[in-house]
Amino acid sequence: MAKSASAANIVSSVSARRWEEPLLHGGELAGGRRLFPDAPEPFIDLSTGINPNPYPVSRLPADVFARLPEADGLASLAAIAAQTYGAPSASHVAAAPGTQILLPLVAALVRPGRAAVLAPSYGEFARVAALAGHSVAEADGLAAIGDAQLILVANPNNPDGRLFARNDLMALAGNLRAHGGLLVVDEAFMDVASSGASLSAEVSGGNIVVLRSFGKFFGLAGVRLGFALAAPNIAARLAAMLGPWAVSGPALAIGAKALADAAWIEKTRIRLEGSAKKLDGILTSAGLDVLGGTNLFRLVRTDAAGELFEHLGRAGILVRRFPEQANWLRFGLPANARAWRRLQIALAGFKQSG
Amino acid sequence: MAKSASAANIVSSVSARRWEEPLLHGGELAGGRRLFPDAPEPFIDLSTGINPNPYPVSRLPADVFARLPEADGLASLAAIAAQTYGAPSASHVAAAPGTQILLPLVAALVRPGRAAVLAPSYGEFARVAALAGHSVAEADGLAAIGDAQLILVANPNNPDGRLFARNDLMALAGNLRAHGGLLVVDEAFMDVASSGASLSAEVSGGNIVVLRSFGKFFGLAGVRLGFALAAPNIAARLAAMLGPWAVSGPALAIGAKALADAAWIEKTRIRLEGSAKKLDGILTSAGLDVLGGTNLFRLVRTDAAGELFEHLGRAGILVRRFPEQANWLRFGLPANARAWRRLQIALAGFKQSG
Repeated sequence: MAKSASAANIVSSVSARRWEEPLLHGGELAGGRRLFPDAPEPFIDLSTGINPNPYPVSRLPADVFARLPEADGLASLAAIAAQTYGAPSASHVAAAPGTQILLPLVAALVRPGRAAVLAPSYGEFARVAALAGHSVAEADGLAAIGDAQLILVANPNNPDGRLFARNDLMALAGNLRAHGGLLVVDEAFMDVASSGASLSAEVSGGNIVVLRSFGKFFGLAGVRLGFALAAPNIAARLAAMLGPWAVSGPALAIGAKALADAAWIEKTRIRLEGSAKKLDGILTSAGLDVLGGTNLFRLVRTDAAGELFEHLGRAGILVRRFPEQANWLRFGLPANARAWRRLQIALAGFKQSG
Repeated sequence: MAKSASAANIVSSVSARRWEEPLLHGGELAGGRRLFPDAPEPFIDLSTGINPNPYPVSRLPADVFARLPEADGLASLAAIAAQTYGAPSASHVAAAPGTQILLPLVAALVRPGRAAVLAPSYGEFARVAALAGHSVAEADGLAAIGDAQLILVANPNNPDGRLFARNDLMALAGNLRAHGGLLVVDEAFMDVASSGASLSAEVSGGNIVVLRSFGKFFGLAGVRLGFALAAPNIAARLAAMLGPWAVSGPALAIGAKALADAAWIEKTRIRLEGSAKKLDGILTSAGLDVLGGTNLFRLVRTDAAGELFEHLGRAGILVRRFPEQANWLRFGLPANARAWRRLQIALAGFKQSG
């Protein structure tokens, strides 16, 4: 009896127990195989918004696995990230093993109070805000965001691809400033958005934090690398919470090389734009209504979403469904000609049978 | 004016600003090279307690870099870690990108109050406890630990290698239980300690958290992998704070293989024991007083610590010094015969000149 009571004391000092349940995410191919055990292999994973043609990882020196990542390596990665993402300087950058791990730390930069998250959006926003002790309200657009000390939005938004205007976000940040609130803009898919929408250059004021994801655009989500761009005191605070060696040796090496490769970045932006257009064509040919998306994924709305998910799954193609939006499906980009063909055939088969 | 005031509001909601300065750690070879620019290469890094002969990293499939780490992979890693470390079950394990990143989260499991840390010990204990809002007292032994809600100790201790008896730690945890306190035992070097000292099997009660480091014993500190062993509700809480995909694809693949390799683990324990004895011999032959250590490092005390650090540095050998203990130096293990010889020659040269 005494045992469990004391244990409860320790953990109950933090609220939001229900947010300790993991959320449903894409990328769970093993789960897809369990759902569709008779599907043809290779299973095609279109359930994420990750570039399926990754930046090439060359053979890594053994040292990057063996040695502690050094401060010099982290400093040069921060400088490269600042340059590529357009942050004012390296001191405005906190590097982390993925933006996901930054989210609870960013949410805890503000004393527990009212948080507002855009919805529908990335489900983790509400979860981490609640974990940090905030009461969370959802808003269906910037105008609907009421009084809040912490606002979390994705720009462009996931999964619908809504792109918010820089000026509208700056106005929101300006209003927040008056009562010491913080605007967090998750620019996970900004790499493939039209230029000029990012707030990366606007973080010096101190109440805007921009999150940039390495793994999605570069197709290297397993590396775990992400960045917070923020005023230097906030970036330092986040770095202190992460502690030394937060970014792995492989992530330092791969990240520094990839983020500096302007030619690959430009080529990839163009390629992804073409792929997204091609995907639109295939989806609309199949009679599906494309609601939106970014050049890394497309969102469709269909009353037959459940049946289509099953149909594609049986054909060995996993897409992303949304329990809270039963008529939505999100499609990532196929990796190669064979995968494109299989998707096209599967969708055509569904249209005929439908 | 309004700008900086609001920014201050956001960050000042958390105390302990001075703990945002990074601490001095080992493993900074670039810093060593700057201190000793004329030293012969290759520079030998003895400034850490990391096994210099790492578990072999075989060629990794491209998928581990490209794809999001899947829940199945994390679950099997947790099961293997529970088995190898002797935790009650996989649900008692939270895997993270290094124990370092777990420390602030563990310190925040308890409401801000009084924390006690063993000293001298790992400098990060006091830093993370202060970051979590605790007032921190240092104690020079278990008996000197007064009333505290959070106690952080390393067992065996770093850098002096003190090994605390399991029963003494269990008694400490028992006292803490009465007022809902938490005992955190960092077993970073337990892999090379005599068996029977670990508290890994004792975490079910709910007020003991054991931290286990992957990188030190396996010599793969760049991979960033570590574990908290704790009661399931605490392990779940930590996993929720870390969020999905906290452990990278390479870390999942390498960790699962290495932790299951009982033959390599046994062979390595024996080899490290031999290496530590050899290091003792070399150090004592040089007239140095070996204070203690683990089989991954040795601590020496000498009034000439400053001169010896310089002498070794000029010979291209970096050891660990301790600003707060000016007459201490810590020596890690040389990686190969050439490095052993260079250490031996450099120490002999110092003895003659001294």
